[in-house]
Amino acid sequence: MEYSREELIKAVSEQMPAQRWQHTVGVMGSSIKLAERYGADVQQAELAAILHDVAKYWPVKRMEAVIKDNNLSKDLLFYDKPLWHAEVGAYVAEHDYGVTDTEVLDAIRYHTSGRIGMTLLDKVVCLADYIEPGRDYPGVDRIRSLAEISLEQGLIAGIDSTINLLISRGQIIYPLTVFARNDLIKQMEANL
Amino acid sequence: MEYSREELIKAVSEQMPAQRWQHTVGVMGSSIKLAERYGADVQQAELAAILHDVAKYWPVKRMEAVIKDNNLSKDLLFYDKPLWHAEVGAYVAEHDYGVTDTEVLDAIRYHTSGRIGMTLLDKVVCLADYIEPGRDYPGVDRIRSLAEISLEQGLIAGIDSTINLLISRGQIIYPLTVFARNDLIKQMEANL
Repeated sequence: MEYSREELIKAVSEQMPAQRWQHTVGVMGSSIKLAERYGADVQQAELAAILHDVAKYWPVKRMEAVIKDNNLSKDLLFYDKPLWHAEVGAYVAEHDYGVTDTEVLDAIRYHTSGRIGMTLLDKVVCLADYIEPGRDYPGVDRIRSLAEISLEQGLIAGIDSTINLLISRGQIIYPLTVFARNDLIKQMEANL
Repeated sequence: MEYSREELIKAVSEQMPAQRWQHTVGVMGSSIKLAERYGADVQQAELAAILHDVAKYWPVKRMEAVIKDNNLSKDLLFYDKPLWHAEVGAYVAEHDYGVTDTEVLDAIRYHTSGRIGMTLLDKVVCLADYIEPGRDYPGVDRIRSLAEISLEQGLIAGIDSTINLLISRGQIIYPLTVFARNDLIKQMEANL
């Protein structure tokens, strides 16, 4: 990597409002804790957390251009814009910040949607994003409690809260999120 | 068709408990009303309604055999068994009862899951199944009210109730149902 940890933190934090950077700091802490608890690599978890929202405050046009110009997942353009920053973030992490670790890049790419076959690192970062200490939404405390027992149970509860929110707003649901949830349930059933 | 309306009603009603046949009679009535309201073919709607649950009380093994032996949608076997009777019902309607109208067969096939690009007839039968007078579940009255205003709004609310139930039970969600809901929302947005 071209950037030291401190240089990376400085570069990423400058791309978002201070409040959103505080969220990222929260995700860094929660990712490290979850990585320690469930045996993921702590450095990978922190690196993915630092970068997970790097493109969150980019203008929509700029995100759209990155997706189109680089043939990233184009079906994303048919779904809600809040999903775009994850795919774009993985691209930016690789091309602007020299991250070559594909596990870290995938954890950034799938931190909002999830995917079928989520890795341990994917799960850690995605769940940390749901439960970092600054988060405050209906049901977050239950998700925090489940996160102490099981990565999968915590994640399923997090995804459920997302789907419930989309339903209450009459918004479409990104199919990959449903596939991710179904796969997590199958994983839990297989481990019973 | 080889069967008269009365012969068909007799043959189908003998394949299920009396209480379930009462549900079918309700779906017949609601399908006719919705067809009249929204301009679908009333005879097609009634025929699909008569047959929609023909396989509902078949033993699981018998449904599984029909799906496997006839190369019907095999991914269905990975999802909840209550979904199976719709696909099997369409097969039975065609092969045991001589229904050749593919619109009617599709309305039977997709009456539980929905699909992308639901036809007017699909929508009528699927929504009738949610709101027939014998139905009693949380939110059914709201779905009945929406059904008076808009087929799509009624259906989306019905699907939402299904997804909410699956989430509350920790069960997997059939992806086609999510695709159907997303497509209905897109249709409504396109008609604004």
